[in-house]
Amino acid sequence: MKSYRKELWFNTNSRRDFINITSEIIKCLKESEIKEGILLCNAMHITSNMFINDAEQGLLNDFERFLEKVAPEKPYDQYEHNGFEDNADAHIKRTIMGREVVVAITDGNLDFGPWEQIFYGEFDGKRRKRVLVKIIGE
Amino acid sequence: MKSYRKELWFNTNSRRDFINITSEIIKCLKESEIKEGILLCNAMHITSNMFINDAEQGLLNDFERFLEKVAPEKPYDQYEHNGFEDNADAHIKRTIMGREVVVAITDGNLDFGPWEQIFYGEFDGKRRKRVLVKIIGE
Amino acid sequence: MKSYRKELWFNTNSRRDFINITSEIIKCLKESEIKEGILLCNAMHITSNMFINDAEQGLLNDFERFLEKVAPEKPYDQYEHNGFEDNADAHIKRTIMGREVVVAITDGNLDFGPWEQIFYGEFDGKRRKRVLVKIIGE
Repeated sequence: MKSYRKELWFNTNSRRDFINITSEIIKCLKESEIKEGILLCNAMHITSNMFINDAEQGLLNDFERFLEKVAPEKPYDQYEHNGFEDNADAHIKRTIMGREVVVAITDGNLDFGPWEQIFYGEFDGKRRKRVLVKIIGE
Repeated sequence: MKSYRKELWFNTNSRRDFINITSEIIKCLKESEIKEGILLCNAMHITSNMFINDAEQGLLNDFERFLEKVAPEKPYDQYEHNGFEDNADAHIKRTIMGREVVVAITDGNLDFGPWEQIFYGEFDGKRRKRVLVKIIGE
Repeated sequence: MKSYRKELWFNTNSRRDFINITSEIIKCLKESEIKEGILLCNAMHITSNMFINDAEQGLLNDFERFLEKVAPEKPYDQYEHNGFEDNADAHIKRTIMGREVVVAITDGNLDFGPWEQIFYGEFDGKRRKRVLVKIIGE
């Protein structure tokens, strides 16, 4: 069994952002030289996430609106977690969206359907944060 | 390490549907001859999903109602993604429900608790769509 | 490839509870002697779940309130599943929170960011229920 590990760093300009990192993940996969196996990609912070969906800006805006509807950022005092921090909504939003993605590796490629793209979801940005890429296989 | 890959195809009669595919997944597992490892099953489309829950029709209806409450299909123009398409709600619903399931394989079986069943969740159906089954182990 | 399997049992005093089980998972990992690979931890019941977040009681209370807002326990008759049972809300809550977590194993440790902790989420407790820990690697 071979294994591969890499950290990817992000620093968004706004509190919330969605970033398509599919090409960076593919670069990791090529570097790993693993042809058959499983790729795990997870946020290493608890206010950001990984998810797979369509690279369409209107849809990403719809996700933003949906998340603000069910777990709004403000007023800050609606959350017990807030006080020293103001990011309780970010913890909840990332949980709805999912911490990690697991992707099949077949013939050295991400084994994806026609529209699948891997996104980093940031919900408490403007600082350096990490994503872990781990691949096992052979 | 052994690996196994199979695509399963679905074409639902309605826009939304939940289909219990546990027996088809077990068939894949037997075919793979893998006894110890991990099974990944994911939708290959971004408006459908995989999830594990109870095979009880009342509960499946409750999921449908819950999803329509938090991310309703209509009016279509509440979503920026809609226009050429009308399925923004389907992208959101599948994200709430989760894209993939990862299941332990022990002694050649799905290592499940008493009520766990694997479901395909369709949120924009009436056309042919795929699910990927990938198993690694030995 | 090595593989390891363990069941962890829980019996909460209240219907809903969040329990930090990170130290128990680390004990499993040490026992497995696996240094590189993947750890899967999933609820074996369909009304409980595993998730990764911050060990902060205020935040856990915020999760409880959020889940009660979007999928309230009562009135019981709002759910078709209820009748003989009263736990439809628990099935929905566990689905929002996610059934399983997948964690990278590197150098014999959980490959975690600074605040990641593994929680068992109970939504229909006061009885003995199980979690599965499965590790593959070498």
